[in-house]
Order: sequence, then C-alpha cells, then structure tokens
Amino acid sequence: MIQTDILIIGAGPTGLFAVFEAGLLKLKCHLIDALPQAGGQCSELYPKKPIYDIPGFPEVLAGDLVDNLMEQIKPFQPGFTLGERAETIEKLEDGTFIVTTSKGTKHQAPIVAIAGGLGSFEPRKPQLENLEKYEDNGVAYMIKDPEVYRNKKVVIAGGGDSALDWSIFLADVASEVTLVHRRNEFRGALDSVEKVQHLKDIGKINLVTPGEIVGLQGEKKLESVIIRKTANAAEDVMLETDFFIPLFGLSPKLGPIADWGLEIEKNAIKVDNALDYQTNIPGIYAIGDVNTYPGKLKLILCGFHEATLMCQSAYQRIFPDKKYVMKYTTVGGVTGFDGSKKEAPKAVVKVIN
Amino acid sequence: MIQTDILIIGAGPTGLFAVFEAGLLKLKCHLIDALPQAGGQCSELYPKKPIYDIPGFPEVLAGDLVDNLMEQIKPFQPGFTLGERAETIEKLEDGTFIVTTSKGTKHQAPIVAIAGGLGSFEPRKPQLENLEKYEDNGVAYMIKDPEVYRNKKVVIAGGGDSALDWSIFLADVASEVTLVHRRNEFRGALDSVEKVQHLKDIGKINLVTPGEIVGLQGEKKLESVIIRKTANAAEDVMLETDFFIPLFGLSPKLGPIADWGLEIEKNAIKVDNALDYQTNIPGIYAIGDVNTYPGKLKLILCGFHEATLMCQSAYQRIFPDKKYVMKYTTVGGVTGFDGSKKEAPKAVVKVIN
Repeated sequence: MIQTDILIIGAGPTGLFAVFEAGLLKLKCHLIDALPQAGGQCSELYPKKPIYDIPGFPEVLAGDLVDNLMEQIKPFQPGFTLGERAETIEKLEDGTFIVTTSKGTKHQAPIVAIAGGLGSFEPRKPQLENLEKYEDNGVAYMIKDPEVYRNKKVVIAGGGDSALDWSIFLADVASEVTLVHRRNEFRGALDSVEKVQHLKDIGKINLVTPGEIVGLQGEKKLESVIIRKTANAAEDVMLETDFFIPLFGLSPKLGPIADWGLEIEKNAIKVDNALDYQTNIPGIYAIGDVNTYPGKLKLILCGFHEATLMCQSAYQRIFPDKKYVMKYTTVGGVTGFDGSKKEAPKAVVKVIN
Repeated sequence: MIQTDILIIGAGPTGLFAVFEAGLLKLKCHLIDALPQAGGQCSELYPKKPIYDIPGFPEVLAGDLVDNLMEQIKPFQPGFTLGERAETIEKLEDGTFIVTTSKGTKHQAPIVAIAGGLGSFEPRKPQLENLEKYEDNGVAYMIKDPEVYRNKKVVIAGGGDSALDWSIFLADVASEVTLVHRRNEFRGALDSVEKVQHLKDIGKINLVTPGEIVGLQGEKKLESVIIRKTANAAEDVMLETDFFIPLFGLSPKLGPIADWGLEIEKNAIKVDNALDYQTNIPGIYAIGDVNTYPGKLKLILCGFHEATLMCQSAYQRIFPDKKYVMKYTTVGGVTGFDGSKKEAPKAVVKVIN
C-alpha cells in the first residue's frame, strides 16, 4: 500500500504543480496517471507545440513546460504510479481514501486531488476479432518502455505523429520495423515525415501503404499479422512479427471517476470555486481541466491557481488545529524533502569606510 | 483624453498579464502606475531576488519575470501612464469611467481593472521643514529618468539597496555624487556594497558617514543642503548640490482608491471570486494582491488566474450580445495588434513513397 498526504490523480501540469504547492506546506504527494509518463496532454499529444499563454513565457514548448515543472517539484520527491488508471475509491472509517488502479496498485491518503484533465487517455483500437487475446501478449497501444522491443520484430500502424515518431525511434532499437498505413499520405511534422522517408529509402523501415492489418495470429502470443493491401482479400499477405502497435490516437474519457459519486456536469466534476475547489465529497478536490464551475476556463494557468488554493485547504483538513502562515518563497526560500535548500542571496550589513 | 477598452491600475505582474489575456480577446489595455517603470514590486523592491513559485520556473529573478511579461504582451501594444497615481474616478452616463491621475492625465474606458498590489508605493520622506518647497525643484524620491542628473551635483541619502544602486549608477552620469547615511554600515547585496566601497576609494563617490541632511537651501530651486555629522550643530557643513534624493524606502498605501466607493476589507478590495473578480461597482474589477475573498492568497500566480477570468467577464460586459468561443493559443496562435502573428508550425500532409 502506497501512503501519502495528497494523492493526485493525473500527472499533467496542474497535478505536477500541486506537488510544489503541497511541498511548501510540507505535504507529500503521489501521482497516478494512465499514461506511461508525466505531463498529461502536454507530453502525450503535443510535446513539440509552443504554448503562448503560460504567464511569463512568451513561448514555451509543451514538453519543456513539463520538464520545467518536473525540475521545480524535484525537491519534494513525489511518487508516481504511471501507466495505470485509477479505478475505484473507497473511504475508510478514519476518513482516509483508498484508490486502486487498473493493475491493482493501492494508494492511501487523507486527501485525493483529481487533476484528470479531459479524463484518462484511452487508445482508439482497431476493429479486430481476437484483439483482446493479444493485449499485453504482443499488442500494445502505447509504448511505455522502448527496451521491450530491442531486437524484436515490430509492426506499427497509423499515419500521424505517433506512428511516425515511434517508427523513427524503434528503427534503431527493433530488429525490424514495418509501418502500415491505409494511405500513402502521412500527417505530421515535416521533419518526421522526411525522416521516415529517409529511413525507408535506406531500408531501416519497411513501409506498407496503402495497407491495413486485418488479422492477428499466434498460439499463446502474437506471432504474425495479416496485411490487406488491396480490396481483394485473396491478395492478403502474412507477416511474422513479435509486436503489433496500432497508434490511432488517444481519446480522453472521464472513465471510472465518473462512478465515484462525484457531482458531474458536462463531463466535468463540479467544485466549489468560491472556496477551495473541493467536490461534493469532502476530502476530494478536482483541479484543472477536469473540474467545472461558473466561468471556468480550461487553461493551464487556471489549474495552477486551483492547485494552490486546493493545497491550502487540504492542509487545513489534515491539520485542523494548526494555523499556517504563508511564507513567500522570495523570503523563505524552498526547502526540499531531499534536504535541498534554495533561497535568495541574503543582504549583507557591511561597513564602507 | 486617453481611451482604451480596459484601464488597468497597477503595472505589476498581474496587470501586465491582463494585457495578454485581454489581447487574445482583441481588447486594448492602458496601464497607470505611480512607479516610474512597469513591474510593480518585482521591479521596484526586489528585481534581483529569485522567485521560486512561479509555475514552470524552478527559479526566476523578479526582474526577469517582468521582462518576460513585457515581451509576452508586446504584440498587444499596451499604453502606459507611469509615475502618476490614479486619484479619482467618475462614472459617466454612458457607463464608462474617467480616471484622473495625480498629474491630471485623464483616461476613459468601459472597464477598470484595479491591479494595485499592496497599493501605490509612497516614498518615506525625511522630516525637513521646507521639503515640499523643493519637491520637483531639486528634491526627488524616485529616479524616473537618470538623464536628468547628467553633469549635475547629486546628494543621495539612505543606507539600503536603492541608495547603493543609484549611487553606483549615477557615479557615471552625475558630475558629483555624495552618499550620506546615518551609520557607516550599509545593508544591501554584497556586490553593491563592494562596488560603492571601490567607487569611494577611487574618488567617484563622496561618502559622508555618519551624516544626515538637516536643512535645504535655495532661492527658487535647491542650491545646497546642510549636513550634520556630529551631535554638535555648530559643526554642520553646507554642501552645494543640484539635487537631493532621499531613498528611505517606499511604503505601499491603498491611497485614493480607498475613497472610490469600493467595499474594502482589511485594506483590500472585496471581489466576487465565485465568478469574475468584480467589485461591488459593476465594471470595476480588482485582481491580484489588491483584492480579497475567502481563501485569498497573495501570490503572483493567483493574480494571473484572476486577470484571465476578469478579461472574459469584461468582454461579456463590453459585448453583451457576442458569444466568445475560447481558442487555445496552441491551436490558434497569437495575433498581435501590431500585425505580428505567432503560431505553432503546421502539420504537413505528405506522401512517403
């Protein structure tokens, strides 16, 4: 059982920044995310896209913003449960919550902060008869650890950035990479399209366009896929492979959280924005894009503010008798749980003579 | 008469960021500030101090944060009335407001956003009989334009960072710089103290410690000051000078805004945080450190959020019949009033063969 002060569901920018604000209050955080890495949409959907409305950054790449936030929260040593979706919540008699993930990992905390963004990102799956049989047995929808594919045969399907970028990356890792797409046109960053063209030209990526995976075969695990290249099924070909990775995009779903007894409105969780972004269940907060209130804007900068006020309220819930006096970081600095200390250079009092 | 869409009182980080959010909505802004430069406390009180709790910046100097914000809002060409304090407000029959400054400059706008921080910074003045006579006639409490002092004789009084830093700066501008302080100990950045020591050693700054200015003389304008070096007044000396600049610090005062009919609580302006940070007077908003509501935290990042929601509400007030659909900057980019356009590189659709 993982135990923490604030259990944060969703490791996007809002969830990450909550770790910092909690840390200033000496509260520890643990984050759960269905995606295999921190950063939410910023890392998964548009890491190379510039964002222009983060205050103080005339322009920042989404991926860089996440890197900066990870650096900022490092002193507060957050825990992470990644690649697992928060499934169920249970309230114990002592008022703490137990949250269990899709893989059965259990987390306990007195405070739960849902920073779930648009929901957990679920992969769009191809329509294939025996797909489920091979899930985690050769079929994957996200690449969590590229080393799994070292010296293996991999078939990737898709025509967007993910399919292009992972084909490029795995060309140097896997023994064989085959990229299958229904059309011969790809949609992505110019640079990525050109790199795939080059890797295809030098024989490091096998390109099958137009093409579509129409069948999966294998005894216990995936051993081969059937590729349809023309309308004539008699012309289908079989290709041996260890892995099939369809990258058809992710679509966010509020998911199991919708069944936690929280007040939901327009696919978002209603919170008390006049006070602390708490939900209808005391001790559960919702911050960032996942919440709603009158005038709500789904902006990262708003999530930062909500996370900050949530942490103050969480502190009061955990320590009802303590009065916390806010100290400015410009004055008090930042003292990490790892013993690190950042602070402004002190003024000196010195004689001039 | 200066006319604009949103008149922002206070050019600190919150006021500056409001320009950006207003700009995304095609609303123009003009800022008034009592200080001679933009940036509020960040520029005036601690430009060299690191701030650790701006989201996405593990560490940023207050002065750099202001520079970044100025760069971020540049496309939206804000107007500035600096070095003038907003004094009076008047509501016209058409619902617009007229705000007049301490120097009589008039501004008209349908929306007023008070982003006044802790208030307008008022200099602490020395107790000198005929001080007022020389104000703007040789006596200054802030340095607005250093060029005023070129090849002039300047007497600076004070023992903190401002006195040290301006003595250093003016040593290369003025014909003569005399720094007078009651003690021979100075309190400031080590670097500044050492620089003043060096400039004193090479004769570019005259140091008088302990010393105190006890009299001002001059027909129409300041011509000389009386310096007391010991308890014995008979030993006072007269020093010819063109300017006397006492830098004894600034203290924030809510000031004339307190008389605008706004609901005030604990020296801050009450706002509706459940909706749009509007005050009790429709059309007047208060954002950042100057406002108060249940759970209020005086943090820069909260001011950014408040500014953003305020702009949305202001838009609705100005265009009650238009429905604004928020566009993400990652998708729509940023189109400046100066014709500039920033946007993410577009994805290409390209054949690989």
